Amino acid sequence: MKLLHTADWHIGRRLHGFDLTDEQQNAFDQIEQIAKQEQVDGLIIAGDVYDRRLPREASVAMVNQMLQQLNLTDHLPIYAISGNHDSATRLATGTPWFKATNLYLHTDLSQAFTPIELPDTQLFLCPYFEPFAAQQYFNDDTIQHLDQAFERVVTEMETHFDSSKKHLLVAHFFVAGSSTTDSETNLTVGGLAAVPTDLLADFDYVALGHLHGKDALQLPNARYSGSPVKFSLSEASQKKGVWIVDTDQTPVKVTFKSITPIHDVRQITSSFEELMATADDITVNHEDYVGITLTDKQPIPNVMARLREIFPRIVTLGRADGFDPQVRYHGETSQQIRQKSPMDLLGDFYEQVAKERLTPQQEKWAKAALKRANESGEQA
Amino acid sequence: MKLLHTADWHIGRRLHGFDLTDEQQNAFDQIEQIAKQEQVDGLIIAGDVYDRRLPREASVAMVNQMLQQLNLTDHLPIYAISGNHDSATRLATGTPWFKATNLYLHTDLSQAFTPIELPDTQLFLCPYFEPFAAQQYFNDDTIQHLDQAFERVVTEMETHFDSSKKHLLVAHFFVAGSSTTDSETNLTVGGLAAVPTDLLADFDYVALGHLHGKDALQLPNARYSGSPVKFSLSEASQKKGVWIVDTDQTPVKVTFKSITPIHDVRQITSSFEELMATADDITVNHEDYVGITLTDKQPIPNVMARLREIFPRIVTLGRADGFDPQVRYHGETSQQIRQKSPMDLLGDFYEQVAKERLTPQQEKWAKAALKRANESGEQA
Repeated sequence: MKLLHTADWHIGRRLHGFDLTDEQQNAFDQIEQIAKQEQVDGLIIAGDVYDRRLPREASVAMVNQMLQQLNLTDHLPIYAISGNHDSATRLATGTPWFKATNLYLHTDLSQAFTPIELPDTQLFLCPYFEPFAAQQYFNDDTIQHLDQAFERVVTEMETHFDSSKKHLLVAHFFVAGSSTTDSETNLTVGGLAAVPTDLLADFDYVALGHLHGKDALQLPNARYSGSPVKFSLSEASQKKGVWIVDTDQTPVKVTFKSITPIHDVRQITSSFEELMATADDITVNHEDYVGITLTDKQPIPNVMARLREIFPRIVTLGRADGFDPQVRYHGETSQQIRQKSPMDLLGDFYEQVAKERLTPQQEKWAKAALKRANESGEQA
Repeated sequence: MKLLHTADWHIGRRLHGFDLTDEQQNAFDQIEQIAKQEQVDGLIIAGDVYDRRLPREASVAMVNQMLQQLNLTDHLPIYAISGNHDSATRLATGTPWFKATNLYLHTDLSQAFTPIELPDTQLFLCPYFEPFAAQQYFNDDTIQHLDQAFERVVTEMETHFDSSKKHLLVAHFFVAGSSTTDSETNLTVGGLAAVPTDLLADFDYVALGHLHGKDALQLPNARYSGSPVKFSLSEASQKKGVWIVDTDQTPVKVTFKSITPIHDVRQITSSFEELMATADDITVNHEDYVGITLTDKQPIPNVMARLREIFPRIVTLGRADGFDPQVRYHGETSQQIRQKSPMDLLGDFYEQVAKERLTPQQEKWAKAALKRANESGEQA
């Protein structure tokens, strides 16, 4: 069988204030296309369908539409679990009806132990859970940490193993030794919330969700799919996509299929002048989400507005080497600056940014304006 | 066919801070029992399933469980619409899958015009909508008010009428001439948001939601079911329940089936002394939600705490005739009172509530306490 493994859609997520609806919809469309082209027998969604436990209505409408499209229109089976960003309770809405069309969405630990029986494979869908849920399920107070809980879960799953079939696990956790980015919610407290890799050893493939990079974990039998969209600058160099999992092969064979963003997320380090000079360079993707690090040290007037004219999606703006204190303060101490008159400060500032002195006419206007400001200040 | 008509469950609603979960679950259980006893062919839920557009997780879990119980366990068809308290978008989750088991939940105006075809009846499920939605659906800017919108809706429905069948409408609106209570959200702005009764004339029965009293509207062919639970003191005298709608009869016959609350909502007008005297009277339902109006005029120390010992579910406490100013102020003006020393005020207050003067020992303790309070006040 061929299964498509994706996860961490985080529908509703924003990137430094930018709405990602179009990116997320487009990535979904590509996932649907890959599923059709590869003629997969189903899709695995390994948790974090939503970005928030309480998604906005627009996000709810989007996810409802996506699941309907894949399952009811395309007739694709779906094997999904809730992640730590989802509300298991809200995501459970409708699930008892979904099974009739092979949409399995597990949101409660108790559902993890009954595998979905595919012709050649047993598929265990284990939703994200807290150790307390395992404590309750196994009625055992000694279960305090995730490693203990997960060991019990796997042991129980193995009692249901059919040795004539392959065994796939879908789960949403931090697996020990994985590498993280800025966009994942940290689940590890003192290392106690990590799943040890040896607990995954008895599965032919573990389709993981939680970490947003496809290479976060390099095991022969376990992978994070990564998110279909880049959610932070720390993911700038990542390749996004999905895994195609082929259970006809032994060991199970996985192939990566890329997703191309509408607008990429990139980090640029350059001088202001060089950046502005790219304005007419059509080989530069000005529409990308960019983190800009300027190599300049001097102040640049109105720098963000001027850069945004060329790069409309600036997510961060920083300086590689900070500011030049000589340029910034004219060599004066802040004590000296504080003693200057408003008119002198204005003149200095103008000279610094405009590279010329105020004209006598400008000086006259400035003085009049300062006088009026002083007067109205006294009246108030 | 026999259909059970209910509405306005408002799952998640509170009564003056009191949680109504048990009341709502119990009323649901009674509705389920009535449906079974009457062997109905389906349930109509005429909107406001939830109390809020953004229900809490506990409410979501409760509604999911209720719909699952009725539809998947009891195999009862459900004909439901969203009300003004529901989020149509959130309530729509799962609905494309629900139809397979005869759970119809319409949340969008566009769904109103395709009737559910029952053997002898066409059932039109018209969700609550704003005039703007009708404007968009009919692509007609002249639709400004609900009466205009509803006329267009009914006209369009009638083009789908099968004259060999009866015609039922499920809707959630304020119908002109209905009587309201305190617990409904007012939809009427200058009378423009009311549906005129003549627009309902062509239906054999209109199963309404929105108003919480079953007798809010008295038409031969249209009824509010009312809420299954009392949501305000203004509903104290209402009888709660559901309608059983029999489409085999012409005209359609409706019969009311009562729901008995665990704890009723009652208004009591009485003197404090008489109320306290009922403490051991087992014929008085002390556990009810009560609005108490005291006929006393004098101040009663610690009145709420003392009443709550006997009536734990007091929702409001008032005075029938206000306070007696003579008793309250000892005949003194507030100016005179303000000039009294703290010790005199304390003595007066004690005498008023305890009906005796401070003993010399009490006076000594009070003076010492006041002295300490003064000293610490000066230090602060």
